Amino acid sequence: MSYSGYYNPSPSAPPLPEPQSQPNHTYSYQSMPSFPPGTHPEVIRSFQMVDLDRSGFIDAKELQQALNTGYQKFSLRTIRLLMLQFMNPNHPFRTGPKEFAELWSCLGQWHAIFERFDSDRSGKIDATELRDALYSLGFAIPPSVLQLLISKYDDQSGRRVELSFDSFVECGMIVMGLTEKFKEKDTGYTGSATLSYETFMTMVIPFLVVE
Amino acid sequence: MSYSGYYNPSPSAPPLPEPQSQPNHTYSYQSMPSFPPGTHPEVIRSFQMVDLDRSGFIDAKELQQALNTGYQKFSLRTIRLLMLQFMNPNHPFRTGPKEFAELWSCLGQWHAIFERFDSDRSGKIDATELRDALYSLGFAIPPSVLQLLISKYDDQSGRRVELSFDSFVECGMIVMGLTEKFKEKDTGYTGSATLSYETFMTMVIPFLVVE
Ligand SMILES: [Ca+2]
Ligand SMILES: [Ca+2]
Repeated sequence: MSYSGYYNPSPSAPPLPEPQSQPNHTYSYQSMPSFPPGTHPEVIRSFQMVDLDRSGFIDAKELQQALNTGYQKFSLRTIRLLMLQFMNPNHPFRTGPKEFAELWSCLGQWHAIFERFDSDRSGKIDATELRDALYSLGFAIPPSVLQLLISKYDDQSGRRVELSFDSFVECGMIVMGLTEKFKEKDTGYTGSATLSYETFMTMVIPFLVVE
Repeated sequence: MSYSGYYNPSPSAPPLPEPQSQPNHTYSYQSMPSFPPGTHPEVIRSFQMVDLDRSGFIDAKELQQALNTGYQKFSLRTIRLLMLQFMNPNHPFRTGPKEFAELWSCLGQWHAIFERFDSDRSGKIDATELRDALYSLGFAIPPSVLQLLISKYDDQSGRRVELSFDSFVECGMIVMGLTEKFKEKDTGYTGSATLSYETFMTMVIPFLVVE
């Protein structure tokens, strides 16, 4: 039983930030939350493009729109799972610059993994490729769990299930998020945890009703 | 800690089945799965209207369409949770006549509860009304869990969260389904359960990725 680690920065990480000496589009948040030093200008630009009221925070639909500039389209379900994973505890329903920069960088890493583990170059990830990808991230998913997860994407056409990048990220967020929650309760790393009903429900509900 | 029971048939249950001596629309499944004796003709009619290939089974979208004839519109998320709750283990992705009849009757009961616990007659269920409704069904939901559940429906407008019938059923299916899973592992009714990582993931994943 092992679900030892989270992501180790990959060799094919997103482009390194370029120094932004003379930005032709000046923009400042004054006393509002700001981007970490060295954030890539494209990341800042994507955020600003959707933060129309310049509040420094964006909601799920705006996040979806911002990511569509740099990546393919994500479902609102994946967006909500990303927001859950990169949540600012003070603003649980909105994403600020810091979380956005982290989220963007994480997506770059997931994209590199998606391409690396798409062994048959189908442009999609099948069950075996998903297993290997998650394993490389430190998640040894039991076969029964992998099966259950992948069955959620079965369109009943009889064809082998393959995940788009959107669904791959969704799966990743679910596995990472739930495993993280479980590990918090399995402090001795024994592979099992004793949970009260209240704890169990509180762990799980944030992952549900994602619309 | 109590989550003692499921639904006790309500006094305002759906209309009693009428004997269908001379149906003007004859229809038979031959050796296929059939409706339990005494199923209300409206239920059979709703099922037949969407089971166009007369296979005796309907998928999620067809179930959504069939229920829309008798009830208001349900989201596909609620439909999938209903299918999960009323699943024929031999046909996990389709609903047969028996499951459809049970599901329809259950929705009638949920609708009666919805109306009974809508104390302020707003046509919607707020947090307090939801707590009381679930309590009447034998689910004593801890306040933290109720809070978390209701927050999922918060549109951030600042208004008090109120659930439509669709969302009310979705909440009901989530609470019933997860509680049932938990109880299976808490055989001594102690209010807590020891779960392996694999068991935890296997319990939870069916409730996720509901699209
Ligand atoms: Ca592939
Ligand atoms: Ca009300």
